[in-house]
Amino acid sequence: MSYKAPLDDMNFLLKDVFEIQKNLGDIEAFKDFDEELYSAVLEESAKFSENVLFPINREGDEEGCSFENGIVTTPKGFKEAYKEYAQGGWQGLSGDPEFGGQGLPKMLNVLTEEMVYSTNTSFCLYSSLTSGAYHAIHAHASDELKALYLPAMLEGRWAGAMGLTESHAGSDLGVIKTKAEDSGDGSYLINGSKMFITGGDQDLTENIIHLVLAKLPGAPDGPQGISLFLVPKIMVNDDGSLGDANGVSCGSIEHKMGIKASATCVMNFDNAKGFLIGKENRGLYAMFTMMNLERLSIGIQGIGLAETSYQLSKNYALERKQGKNAKGEATTIIQHADVRRMILEQRAYTEAGRALAVYMGMQIDKQYHHPDELEREKSEKRMAFLTPVAKAFFTDKGFDACNLGVQILGGHGFVREWGLEQLVRDAKIGQIYEGTNGIQAQDFMVRKICLDKQSMLSEIYDEIEISINRECDLPEFKLIKQQLVDLKLEIDSTIDWMKDNFKIRGYDIQGGATQFLHAFGHLVYAWMWLEILHGTENTDNKLLVQRKKVGAKFFSQHLLPQAFDLCKRVKMGYKDYIELDESLL
Amino acid sequence: MSYKAPLDDMNFLLKDVFEIQKNLGDIEAFKDFDEELYSAVLEESAKFSENVLFPINREGDEEGCSFENGIVTTPKGFKEAYKEYAQGGWQGLSGDPEFGGQGLPKMLNVLTEEMVYSTNTSFCLYSSLTSGAYHAIHAHASDELKALYLPAMLEGRWAGAMGLTESHAGSDLGVIKTKAEDSGDGSYLINGSKMFITGGDQDLTENIIHLVLAKLPGAPDGPQGISLFLVPKIMVNDDGSLGDANGVSCGSIEHKMGIKASATCVMNFDNAKGFLIGKENRGLYAMFTMMNLERLSIGIQGIGLAETSYQLSKNYALERKQGKNAKGEATTIIQHADVRRMILEQRAYTEAGRALAVYMGMQIDKQYHHPDELEREKSEKRMAFLTPVAKAFFTDKGFDACNLGVQILGGHGFVREWGLEQLVRDAKIGQIYEGTNGIQAQDFMVRKICLDKQSMLSEIYDEIEISINRECDLPEFKLIKQQLVDLKLEIDSTIDWMKDNFKIRGYDIQGGATQFLHAFGHLVYAWMWLEILHGTENTDNKLLVQRKKVGAKFFSQHLLPQAFDLCKRVKMGYKDYIELDESLL
Repeated sequence: MSYKAPLDDMNFLLKDVFEIQKNLGDIEAFKDFDEELYSAVLEESAKFSENVLFPINREGDEEGCSFENGIVTTPKGFKEAYKEYAQGGWQGLSGDPEFGGQGLPKMLNVLTEEMVYSTNTSFCLYSSLTSGAYHAIHAHASDELKALYLPAMLEGRWAGAMGLTESHAGSDLGVIKTKAEDSGDGSYLINGSKMFITGGDQDLTENIIHLVLAKLPGAPDGPQGISLFLVPKIMVNDDGSLGDANGVSCGSIEHKMGIKASATCVMNFDNAKGFLIGKENRGLYAMFTMMNLERLSIGIQGIGLAETSYQLSKNYALERKQGKNAKGEATTIIQHADVRRMILEQRAYTEAGRALAVYMGMQIDKQYHHPDELEREKSEKRMAFLTPVAKAFFTDKGFDACNLGVQILGGHGFVREWGLEQLVRDAKIGQIYEGTNGIQAQDFMVRKICLDKQSMLSEIYDEIEISINRECDLPEFKLIKQQLVDLKLEIDSTIDWMKDNFKIRGYDIQGGATQFLHAFGHLVYAWMWLEILHGTENTDNKLLVQRKKVGAKFFSQHLLPQAFDLCKRVKMGYKDYIELDESLL
Repeated sequence: MSYKAPLDDMNFLLKDVFEIQKNLGDIEAFKDFDEELYSAVLEESAKFSENVLFPINREGDEEGCSFENGIVTTPKGFKEAYKEYAQGGWQGLSGDPEFGGQGLPKMLNVLTEEMVYSTNTSFCLYSSLTSGAYHAIHAHASDELKALYLPAMLEGRWAGAMGLTESHAGSDLGVIKTKAEDSGDGSYLINGSKMFITGGDQDLTENIIHLVLAKLPGAPDGPQGISLFLVPKIMVNDDGSLGDANGVSCGSIEHKMGIKASATCVMNFDNAKGFLIGKENRGLYAMFTMMNLERLSIGIQGIGLAETSYQLSKNYALERKQGKNAKGEATTIIQHADVRRMILEQRAYTEAGRALAVYMGMQIDKQYHHPDELEREKSEKRMAFLTPVAKAFFTDKGFDACNLGVQILGGHGFVREWGLEQLVRDAKIGQIYEGTNGIQAQDFMVRKICLDKQSMLSEIYDEIEISINRECDLPEFKLIKQQLVDLKLEIDSTIDWMKDNFKIRGYDIQGGATQFLHAFGHLVYAWMWLEILHGTENTDNKLLVQRKKVGAKFFSQHLLPQAFDLCKRVKMGYKDYIELDESLL
């Protein structure tokens, strides 16, 4: 049972579907790169993921992280793998060259990230949180802080962690209790305790840079009174060398269903020295600019795990003999229609998701680097709008895919040695952290649709229109195009219903938020399948073209139609249940 | 976080919905029992489950079973709990009084079983497998074997286990390799190895009675050449006392995703002495009569775990504060429409499932004990027809419920100490063992519908017709009734399509088997909700009546409608995918 990175598919998306050279080639930041380089990076990333990360994935799950005398130890092999990862330059792949990054496009980075999630989700989280912290510092910290901290983070010598959640405040950050006091010397004293801190402590890197949300004295109540601080585990001298330990300690680690090789920590800050990032009381704003990237990353976790489940379960089905066919020959279970259904369902969702991830990577590249301000704005809007869809739909469908994988293996899927059940356990957290998928759905329904003042939806509809109007003679293209047009009408009528009822009745319509997000997810995936089919005209890889046609057809026949039913369920509303006494629930 | 058995609901189902006194009162076997006794049994079962089994459930998961020097050890507390279970007479609850059982109805037993699954699924499996072995011996073994083995099994002093699966033969029992040779003294020598044997070894009981499928020399190939043998772990003397060890040993135990306190064993039979049950080469037949009961039991596991998830997640939502309402008051998350949706979805499926389990229990009682042969036959058909639906739909919806429970708890759902994630892991196996849900769906679509010669479907349709024609003025009743009539038309047209295409094209239609089973599951649950609503007229419990009306309405508005979409998906067919080269999957 092994994982092979889907390099053909990945190169196809970059070159033939989203034409990276055409779309990014004129942008100053990317002008030194070409398709050959992108392809070589994918290949190297594949080797590292297949040969270094996958082999330590299951042992990492079995061993888990341990916590003793205040110290977190990661499982065997993780330290060496992380060192190799850092030395290979993977942490700085799309980082700012000013701070030692390689400046490669996010379009490429989403694919290398997928491979890392596919082969070792726990490992990937250490890197992903470092990227998140890097982005927040890069966007909002002073030049001094950036110069002092970012290079070591991009080198992978120091990691990052995010201190948001407190025990009494999960998704509601407005009520946190951690306090910050101005020391008068440009630093602050941080006191408080945070929980569910991924990579809050570990033994992989020399230092850990915590970004911590805290309240200053006299700050306003609620979200408008939260500030963001950079709090290193070990103090950093002006020359970048490490100084004394800061007042940062790990209190315990969680025992979890999955991602067991990723340390989830309670972190205590006792008179820890911190540095303000961005403006006072504007911490949530600084955090949110980074959060879209983190949410996309977690979405990609769902795609990565789904890809691994697809591969492992398909390979098992190809080899597992069971029963005989009409001619009396021993058959493998891949000949069963029900097994084919489960394989194709995994693939049809995963490939559309991967396409959307690359599309969103392209929006990030344009948002930060496009010379034209209008283009930057448009890309930012598209990215903001699609983020909750990507986070929730990728991870929900990723979880489903892993469960289908287990079903294909039957009893062997439930037994640990085959690795499928670990995928389910690792995929489960994707639906929860970085804002539960329920919260993503509410964000999407209310902020992105009902209260939107920026016409974000029409920005995406414009893009879909371009896809619909492409020239493509494939019958599969015409089929999905028609379904997409029909579904868009149904979605529009659902949006009308949502807006009307949101005005009248308020928040009870959110009972249908998850269904609406899923319906919209199918619309977006249909659009991605159009793009994929259109892209097949740019390649000579006949097998790949055939596979895309099969995937598109399966999606259109067996998956997309349920979106209509989801819309109906949204419009049924929840007004009968929102005022109901709790004893009747 | 604790579990309280839903006694009001259970008593309501027995007394008011399925009128146990009216339906079973005239049957000789049950004439000594009355509702007061049934209610008292439920109450005692609740106490035992809440106070003895639930407290050792999470520790049992953490500790798991261990295997050392050929010996399986169950987690702390299991031995004492099993002893108490046996002494309380729970193992013999619905057993034949001739062999020391209490002869109570299965209608009651399904509810006590649910409580045991709810509170400790691993524990329940030891008991459930013993019941399965008891039934096979009771139905097919000689009087001598029955007299020698059944009393100790009903006492809970000896357990039972089922040796079916071999490493190369999962769901395909026709190709097993375990051999049996006639010793000429009325016994047989059994040689071979079995895997995935639940409770194959343990330290709870004095003896384990293995039922083992094996092939006699010269037996025909395939399913028609399999015989069933009773193989005790320790030989039993004629007076029922224990003799020497038999050639039965545990080779290893599996490391699994869940049900960790249930030992899943590789069992080796080396010249083990066995006794034929039923006729030579008719072993699968003997096994299958027991299998419907086992499948219902596994279905009930799904309901039990869903009930626990519903309770734990609802209680959490009632207590967990997050955010403020429009008046600035701190709110609990149960006030969110999305959380209410997740709570009601769990409840609406679970309560319909529980009703169906009780209905099926009643069919079993009639099948074995009704004085009228025609009634016995009808009940047997209903039970056989509904078995795959109950097994697969109960466990699929049970798994979904546990996942909704985790989502309600958010990060706390993923952390082990809250117990929700264990429910997901324990529920997962229900979709796999006793025939994967994919296999249940194929059995249902092909054997129970397309190839049925016994009009099993019309037997159930007759019952549904009775429900539809009941007098009931509740608006919810009228609503579901109309939906049920509409859905039945859609299902009928789907069945026509299935039969036509099965004749023409054969097995590719099975790609839609799971969807069809789910569609039919919604039809059956709608029927159950009709029965529940009708039953509310027999009770004065106003809160219960209100809760049933809410559950029925939610089911009709938000859950039932998806069945129409599922039917469409079935009729879309899989002919485009069945012949596809494997490289295109």
